[in-house]
Amino acid sequence: MMRGGFLRRTARQSTLLTTGHRVPRYFLTIAYDGGAYAGWQRQKDQDTVQQRLEAAVASIFGVHCHVHGAGRTDAGVHALRQVAHVDLPRPFDANQLPRALSSQLPPDIGVREARRVPDELHARFSAIGKRYLYRCRNQRDAPVHGRGYVAWVPGPLDLQEMRRGAAQLVGRHDFAAFSSNPGYPRDRGTVRTIQGLHLIRRRGGFDLAVQGDGFLYNMVRTIAGTLLWVGKGKLRPDDVGAILRSGDRRRAGPNAPASGLFMLRVLYPKPAAEGSIRYNPE
Amino acid sequence: MMRGGFLRRTARQSTLLTTGHRVPRYFLTIAYDGGAYAGWQRQKDQDTVQQRLEAAVASIFGVHCHVHGAGRTDAGVHALRQVAHVDLPRPFDANQLPRALSSQLPPDIGVREARRVPDELHARFSAIGKRYLYRCRNQRDAPVHGRGYVAWVPGPLDLQEMRRGAAQLVGRHDFAAFSSNPGYPRDRGTVRTIQGLHLIRRRGGFDLAVQGDGFLYNMVRTIAGTLLWVGKGKLRPDDVGAILRSGDRRRAGPNAPASGLFMLRVLYPKPAAEGSIRYNPE
Repeated sequence: MMRGGFLRRTARQSTLLTTGHRVPRYFLTIAYDGGAYAGWQRQKDQDTVQQRLEAAVASIFGVHCHVHGAGRTDAGVHALRQVAHVDLPRPFDANQLPRALSSQLPPDIGVREARRVPDELHARFSAIGKRYLYRCRNQRDAPVHGRGYVAWVPGPLDLQEMRRGAAQLVGRHDFAAFSSNPGYPRDRGTVRTIQGLHLIRRRGGFDLAVQGDGFLYNMVRTIAGTLLWVGKGKLRPDDVGAILRSGDRRRAGPNAPASGLFMLRVLYPKPAAEGSIRYNPE
Repeated sequence: MMRGGFLRRTARQSTLLTTGHRVPRYFLTIAYDGGAYAGWQRQKDQDTVQQRLEAAVASIFGVHCHVHGAGRTDAGVHALRQVAHVDLPRPFDANQLPRALSSQLPPDIGVREARRVPDELHARFSAIGKRYLYRCRNQRDAPVHGRGYVAWVPGPLDLQEMRRGAAQLVGRHDFAAFSSNPGYPRDRGTVRTIQGLHLIRRRGGFDLAVQGDGFLYNMVRTIAGTLLWVGKGKLRPDDVGAILRSGDRRRAGPNAPASGLFMLRVLYPKPAAEGSIRYNPE
């Protein structure tokens, strides 16, 4: 579906590029099943969520628009409420946008909400926090249902010891030891604040819920893998603090599998959050 | 893995055939994700759960053994605790059997329990009841995660009206109007007893849980489809009783999709149930 001719689009785009304030910018809240995708970020010859969203925008507006995600989830990682912004070539009814985009997306990606926002808001740079959930099945038998939505951890685990280890990660710390690539993103260093880290028992296993002001590459999966080592007795709770202080990734546990990880939500300052981050209960 | 020579197997099999009481019969408790299968029952040129189980038995025991299921689930229908019996060519440690069989099965089928039982017990004919769960998502947005484990029913639904309709199905009735094929199975007629039928609200939707002494072909899905029509106001609660009395399948609602249906468990009389139906919490 092409709207507007080439000249009109070009004129509009150049206006947007030069003034920077007349852009109709939208925040999108996006749910996806990461199982079939090579992660969020556009990659050559790979199917990614970002590409699918940009293709959906292009099919409606006839031009390519960059869709900026708040976070770059890995292959197999899921999102309930990822947030992205996109500058559209023309205003579009925000109430209609989720349905319009979802109709151009595969069934494992859905746009849940859209909201026009001031163009100084940026999905990634304006975010003040993120919430993730890591889901573990702790039973003798491997799961047969929903294998892509859980990490299977058989054998006894001491959840109290894991909680003691988790407590040492809460607060403002240098998390270099908990990232597969502490140099990325380059502009922000490796100091982050974890505001909460909870182990919640549920039927057949437990969830690890974590909120922080930001996360390094693979940080949640490294935290999960390290705490699982504590649960198995391979590490003591106090070792978690020592690993943190060492800054040495080799001392932490392995990255827990991507399948258990869900990006739950992205947090923005109040004025932006009102409305734009109005979620449906999932 | 072939154990025992051809002659030994043949001798044992003929003994089993003639005496009928020396058979090492095992009850298996089986979980499967029905998404990739053309249902339970063996079919030519189709991948089915029964065939996979029989292939697993053959790979361990070197002979084909019929695996008799308690119920024949349709394509896409899941099971948490289907039960089947199999007469093995030789006794095998029941504690080792689940792991041995599961190692020969794809990851979406798992044998959870095995128990040697007297050979007058039959997975299907000895069953005195079954419990099913039908899971509905009742939200505006289509699900993106776990699409194979739920039926999506958008739009307003009156659960109280659905409960009133459901109440009319509880008890001993002729359920011909609620079966796609009332002539099957041929030997048992169309009268069944529903012992309980409950609508349970959960986050994002609700579950329909039903227990009965047996179910006709597609009966749970027809009940779900009919009650959903009540919820939408297409039928009144009293119509459910009238449809039941009419015996006319054309008056009931459509079969709800297979993806929402889970066989939860199969019930046997107490002596058989002890141990053989000892389930793990799922």
